[in-house]
Amino acid sequence: MKIGFIGTGVMGSSMVRHLLKAGYEVNVYNRTKSKAMPLTEEGAVWKNTPAEIAKTSDVILTIVGYPIDVEKVYFEEDGVFEGLSEGKTIIDMTTSTPALAEQLAKEAEKIGVAALDAPVSGGDLGAKNGTLTVMVGGEQAAYEKVQPILDTFSSELRLFGPAGSGQHTKMANQIMVAGTMTGLIEMLAYAKKAGLDLEEVVKTVNGGAARNWSLENYGPRIIKEDYSPGFFVKHFVKDLKIALDEAEKMELNLPATTQAYELYKNLESVGYGDEGTQSLIKLWWD
Amino acid sequence: MKIGFIGTGVMGSSMVRHLLKAGYEVNVYNRTKSKAMPLTEEGAVWKNTPAEIAKTSDVILTIVGYPIDVEKVYFEEDGVFEGLSEGKTIIDMTTSTPALAEQLAKEAEKIGVAALDAPVSGGDLGAKNGTLTVMVGGEQAAYEKVQPILDTFSSELRLFGPAGSGQHTKMANQIMVAGTMTGLIEMLAYAKKAGLDLEEVVKTVNGGAARNWSLENYGPRIIKEDYSPGFFVKHFVKDLKIALDEAEKMELNLPATTQAYELYKNLESVGYGDEGTQSLIKLWWD
Repeated sequence: MKIGFIGTGVMGSSMVRHLLKAGYEVNVYNRTKSKAMPLTEEGAVWKNTPAEIAKTSDVILTIVGYPIDVEKVYFEEDGVFEGLSEGKTIIDMTTSTPALAEQLAKEAEKIGVAALDAPVSGGDLGAKNGTLTVMVGGEQAAYEKVQPILDTFSSELRLFGPAGSGQHTKMANQIMVAGTMTGLIEMLAYAKKAGLDLEEVVKTVNGGAARNWSLENYGPRIIKEDYSPGFFVKHFVKDLKIALDEAEKMELNLPATTQAYELYKNLESVGYGDEGTQSLIKLWWD
Repeated sequence: MKIGFIGTGVMGSSMVRHLLKAGYEVNVYNRTKSKAMPLTEEGAVWKNTPAEIAKTSDVILTIVGYPIDVEKVYFEEDGVFEGLSEGKTIIDMTTSTPALAEQLAKEAEKIGVAALDAPVSGGDLGAKNGTLTVMVGGEQAAYEKVQPILDTFSSELRLFGPAGSGQHTKMANQIMVAGTMTGLIEMLAYAKKAGLDLEEVVKTVNGGAARNWSLENYGPRIIKEDYSPGFFVKHFVKDLKIALDEAEKMELNLPATTQAYELYKNLESVGYGDEGTQSLIKLWWD
């Protein structure tokens, strides 16, 4: 079974390495070719367009930046759909809109192609260590067929329902993260103003009912003024926008998530888009 | 060393039991006398007023409901201050205002009494198991003197600075919790509307960067529609109000915490004050 992989950024490159290690033949394409070159030295085969990837592979994985990039990769000239044929499977792992996941599934079905949406969580480290959480939407049969492939880079893999369900689950995840991040940042802003020792506060607060991953991982980094991205502000802004757009469609009011989105949008607008999400503290400290 | 204990509610009663078990003589007082009676059968001695408690004890611990209750217990007729004398120590463990903690310390100092603010975190279970987190403010010498006493019911005990610092640290803790709770509730509201299996979402989301104590503990309870209080809505509303008042005094804007406060105040106003904080989901589901 030949795999095609489109989008060899930080996340994608690590995933390709896990696929190669597991013995899969992998064709790769990336908008910026140079980023895919190290992978070709490790055994991956470069293809010149997404269409070529689709033509020469049985299962096509994509992980790109924004929903607009997903649309381009699949539907534009030389896009994936130009190279697809019956029996193949497409898997979009970009965090994107449930509606686009449904559209991909619908277009794929017309030509006998299976489609899954499978956004991931776990960041660059999770990709590197092969411990990503993969949240899948689509048909059971297609899911079962590609499970061994997704298993090569994930420690938690689950089918949540029909097309779009993977994206919805990822949105739920990001809504939760919006809460832990805003809570953490406002806690640190308060503690500093109150003259408390931040290291002691982080340690003590994390020992009880306020314990969370963001506090454990970003608390110490913020104290050390380390704002390097584990997860980009600009991508979090995109994710929260999708979550809120979906919520609006469902006539669901999410005031705390809306507040988090506004804070992060504000942060992006003052130039922190390419920093890590922990840099939200910059709205208070500078 | 004789200990006086005022406020034998769910938290206080467990704390008194740990003190008795450690061999301390404990005098008790509670506004509703009947709630203290089981403790007298276990060796505690009933006193008729806070003043009597103060007169007959060396270290006086208080844990009552609201800052107004703290003021009454200390400053009213038959209050603690009527019975205090030089060399004694007062420790208020109520989650209250830093300003009131400072006032207590100031009044105490005038008569040669040491004062500590020492709010706790860890809930009814933490009190029962003797694993509370105790966040202390006050003088180092007074802190060291009473450490063995506080140790009987805590697993994490720390002095954060001068009078009021314990309360400030507790506020930082509650700001963090406001984030995890609103995130959790909006996540569940979204996941349900999107038609996802809530149990699977909770399990998967808690496996990654969104992991937190509220999700682990309240996620499953909410799915089972268990809204019994681990922590009362009305007390969380009080705590967030104190945090926001303090923030305002420090000219600190906390938009996410403000949003959480408004949601919880709304929840209280529609009749959920005596339910657990996980009942916030009732603003979405009913």
